[in-house]
Amino acid sequence: MDTYRAPVEDMRFLIDEVLEAENVLGSLPDFAELGVGPDLTVALLDEAAKLAGDALAPLRRVGDEQPATCEAGAVTCSPGHEDALNQMGAGGWIGISSDPNYGGQGLPEIYSTVGHEMWNGANMALALAPMLSSGAALAIHAHGTEEQKRTYLEKMHTGEWMGTMNLTESGAGSDLGVMKARAVPEGDHYRITGQKIFITWGDHEATDNIVHLVLAKLPGAPEGSRGISLFIVPKFLVNEDGSLGERNDVYPVSVEHKLGIHGSPTCVMAFGDNGGAIGYLLGEENRGLACMFTMMNEARLKVGIQGLGASEGALQKATAYARERVQGGVPIIEHADVKRMLLTMKSLCEAMRALAYAEAVTMDLAHRGPQDQRGQQQSRIDLMIPVIKGWMTEVGQEVTSLGVQVHGGMGYVEETGAAQYFRDVRITPIYEGTNGIQAADLVSRKLGRDGGAAMESVLQDIRATCEGLAASGDARLAGIGSAMEGALAEQEASTQWVLQALKQDAAAAMGASFEYMMQTGYLFGGWHLARAAQVAFERLQAGSDNPFYEAKLATALYYAEQILPRCAAHAGAVARADGALQSYPLEWI
Amino acid sequence: MDTYRAPVEDMRFLIDEVLEAENVLGSLPDFAELGVGPDLTVALLDEAAKLAGDALAPLRRVGDEQPATCEAGAVTCSPGHEDALNQMGAGGWIGISSDPNYGGQGLPEIYSTVGHEMWNGANMALALAPMLSSGAALAIHAHGTEEQKRTYLEKMHTGEWMGTMNLTESGAGSDLGVMKARAVPEGDHYRITGQKIFITWGDHEATDNIVHLVLAKLPGAPEGSRGISLFIVPKFLVNEDGSLGERNDVYPVSVEHKLGIHGSPTCVMAFGDNGGAIGYLLGEENRGLACMFTMMNEARLKVGIQGLGASEGALQKATAYARERVQGGVPIIEHADVKRMLLTMKSLCEAMRALAYAEAVTMDLAHRGPQDQRGQQQSRIDLMIPVIKGWMTEVGQEVTSLGVQVHGGMGYVEETGAAQYFRDVRITPIYEGTNGIQAADLVSRKLGRDGGAAMESVLQDIRATCEGLAASGDARLAGIGSAMEGALAEQEASTQWVLQALKQDAAAAMGASFEYMMQTGYLFGGWHLARAAQVAFERLQAGSDNPFYEAKLATALYYAEQILPRCAAHAGAVARADGALQSYPLEWI
Repeated sequence: MDTYRAPVEDMRFLIDEVLEAENVLGSLPDFAELGVGPDLTVALLDEAAKLAGDALAPLRRVGDEQPATCEAGAVTCSPGHEDALNQMGAGGWIGISSDPNYGGQGLPEIYSTVGHEMWNGANMALALAPMLSSGAALAIHAHGTEEQKRTYLEKMHTGEWMGTMNLTESGAGSDLGVMKARAVPEGDHYRITGQKIFITWGDHEATDNIVHLVLAKLPGAPEGSRGISLFIVPKFLVNEDGSLGERNDVYPVSVEHKLGIHGSPTCVMAFGDNGGAIGYLLGEENRGLACMFTMMNEARLKVGIQGLGASEGALQKATAYARERVQGGVPIIEHADVKRMLLTMKSLCEAMRALAYAEAVTMDLAHRGPQDQRGQQQSRIDLMIPVIKGWMTEVGQEVTSLGVQVHGGMGYVEETGAAQYFRDVRITPIYEGTNGIQAADLVSRKLGRDGGAAMESVLQDIRATCEGLAASGDARLAGIGSAMEGALAEQEASTQWVLQALKQDAAAAMGASFEYMMQTGYLFGGWHLARAAQVAFERLQAGSDNPFYEAKLATALYYAEQILPRCAAHAGAVARADGALQSYPLEWI
Repeated sequence: MDTYRAPVEDMRFLIDEVLEAENVLGSLPDFAELGVGPDLTVALLDEAAKLAGDALAPLRRVGDEQPATCEAGAVTCSPGHEDALNQMGAGGWIGISSDPNYGGQGLPEIYSTVGHEMWNGANMALALAPMLSSGAALAIHAHGTEEQKRTYLEKMHTGEWMGTMNLTESGAGSDLGVMKARAVPEGDHYRITGQKIFITWGDHEATDNIVHLVLAKLPGAPEGSRGISLFIVPKFLVNEDGSLGERNDVYPVSVEHKLGIHGSPTCVMAFGDNGGAIGYLLGEENRGLACMFTMMNEARLKVGIQGLGASEGALQKATAYARERVQGGVPIIEHADVKRMLLTMKSLCEAMRALAYAEAVTMDLAHRGPQDQRGQQQSRIDLMIPVIKGWMTEVGQEVTSLGVQVHGGMGYVEETGAAQYFRDVRITPIYEGTNGIQAADLVSRKLGRDGGAAMESVLQDIRATCEGLAASGDARLAGIGSAMEGALAEQEASTQWVLQALKQDAAAAMGASFEYMMQTGYLFGGWHLARAAQVAFERLQAGSDNPFYEAKLATALYYAEQILPRCAAHAGAVARADGALQSYPLEWI
């Protein structure tokens, strides 16, 4: 059976000591009554860690070995999965950051984030269900009528019902403009017809109802992405008193046979094969894509955190094995290269966590912070999101692969369970916008739109951190600072290169985008890890003898020495992205 | 059904034009009668390409979806696999480079190498059977008595029988010294008992007999790795007239459920559960590990080439998809980041091929070249082998992962077949000595033993290539040369750092070893690609209008611009491998 122990010490340290949630978030009007602070953090972390460790983790291998199946228009979940989903709902976790007016807990995003990391560390396939459901709820909250919100949200926030997102069609993946699903008006509702693919948790019997959000085109809608509308298509229609009515005409056709996340039924969904599914317009006509995009940042942050969660799970498994497995008379953790692999995994996990948690706070500040700061916070989170999604899911590939490698031959045997992290996390660079799309978004939108102003604002903060590190009088912090300064200079050069290219040669800027995204990620991750090291140093200076703080300093130094040099490689590639990459004729590939 | 078209144009170019097999190998006494040269190359490539494309590739998905099974002491192969193995044997491919006195074809290693790339590009699981079998035959050839050679070799070289290697036990992986298998003398043979794991193609019914080579300990043998002997344990005993006798007491117990290479039965093998398996000593008592090591270079070269083969397969599949799949109104190959991914895959494939083929020639020169050069050639191949095995199998992870990524969501669906390359190739950094072991071998043995002399000899050759590139008068070659010079300087610095560390702080040298191996691989691959570009340039200068030559130049330039910058990252990590990596206490991990 799988074990997963949520890294609560690092989580608590980041939330309470580094990010100072009590001061920064607890004082905001939206959170003032909720008691945000260390006691709440500890209570929530404990409860979530229990759920993750006791209910979700033991099902990780079960879902992998006994995937969900689809027969006769209904999905049968992997054993135990429906019960685990109900436990997550009952624990209040699905609506933890949702509007308390509709059954949510109203807590800051950081608490949703920390739970999300745990669910994914314990069981990524299961974690997808609440992730998609809360995304759907967010869309209804942002764009629904009061009646729609009353009808759906409380039940979704409490996990009584779940939600799904139906975007992709077989010919329309990254390019949603060419979709074929249709919606025809009929009285107060629409009749939806069409087929959607890759629908995560598209059907199950964990909850009485499933609220499908579906993109489709109205008759005579404009061509392309400006002619797409969003509809609520419940599995069971809802009567006026809130009770369930007729079965709607939406059914799963099949589930995909995938590389990983076998416990998550990825459905082909058929709408309207028997007369047309009844759907209700969400938001305005032809504004469906815009509606979807309003929750894009949250969704992409969460996919980035999937990369972190899987990495942490892989790290724990590999560390336990390396302590136990003896070769050459000693546990293999004592072998130089095994130590290197584990430290690489660990430092990358902690850098990802420090980055993602910090930006979860930024997200709250953008939505609920002091009004005069919201614009700047929004610019920052907009800049950060493609980096978090892209970089963290790429790093997730490396960390989970190292997790396999530490196990040697046993890592290649499925029963060991190390390979599953590697297979599961492989979807994360693909969905919710491929990492190529993240990179393009970073360069063309997030850098191009404001001429690099948001990036420059972060770089200024990094400069300040570097100064603090240099002035600390501590050799470790100074070492981190010196490495950070080098990486910062490379980032400045790459940023200038990309900004210049955007003006002169957009194709070259796009060609550089992936390398630039990775470079940025390594720098930002290192920066947040360095900030955490500064706080740890303060605690030690103040007399703490907690080895956790010493370890935090050492981990940040390891990252600075062994990981940050990667920025130079990415910078080198960026600086030559206008060369053969551009001139190479496609027919020679 | 899967398609695979062997990249015969690049293969032929490398063998005949870059490596000049006719001049360099054709004139050697061992090959003088064989007609080594362009006609032979073309004939062999054509024949092998047909076998790979027609017989092996169509079985790749079959083996994945219908893995080999084990029941009642016998393995049942995936459908079609036994027939395909027989075709490989009948085609003379298993013994293509083996001694003609025992049924081999006696051709240079480069022809074995090119075939091996094709088998692995088409079907890695199947390719493992002849790979292991020819390894076992090589050991018998090197260490067997004349009678043993007469008994086993011809049948193994022609594929009438196959061979296996039985090394690993459940407690003895990388550290073979602690193995438990025992061999007790009994007349002219021994009785072998014990259990071995991870035995590739440990049982099947493709051939009448299977010749197991088994490591075991004699009574009273010295402790550790110096007390291990090697035995021939045929599945069926062989009568004096060569006919098959009694069934020997060796049986498969089970097959592993693995991440990939499902078509290759990875067996737990039981020796002597019913009284003891009859085995014959191969080589001297207690010298078994040394016997195994004599064929280590060949085996590790071949695993490196598995990384190449899988990468080429993934590249072909991804390229075909990218030309066909339309998003945003154009085939996705026109998207900037998809082009980047494909060029990264292609340039890495061609660099790996250029490196591996060149060193296959080195291997022949070390074994069969002019006597006075053999020592130097042996030093070079000894240096190259851990780089080829380690770097090419790591690169194989990246290239096959990019292959998945190019396919977007379809890449995550198993039926697409892209994910299988990614799963299959994941074993290659693990087996035949983990890449951590390769890195340690490179640094401690290959660099430490001669104080860096063999490395310096390669670096001198690279310097000469750089001079030629700079003097070419061609902007592309000059661009390649300038990038190579930077990477060369970084390699010199890292080499000095590692040599120094070996003297002062061996743990730091080991900590740097993996990064150093990767740095070396990127440089060596780029160097051989640059040499190929020089030859292509000569052809163009001489009036050729073959776009293949233009593409070769452009690919090498792409590699120099986009891939070679990675050397800087590895160099940066090497230079700080004496820092936190060393001082980090294990209990904090």
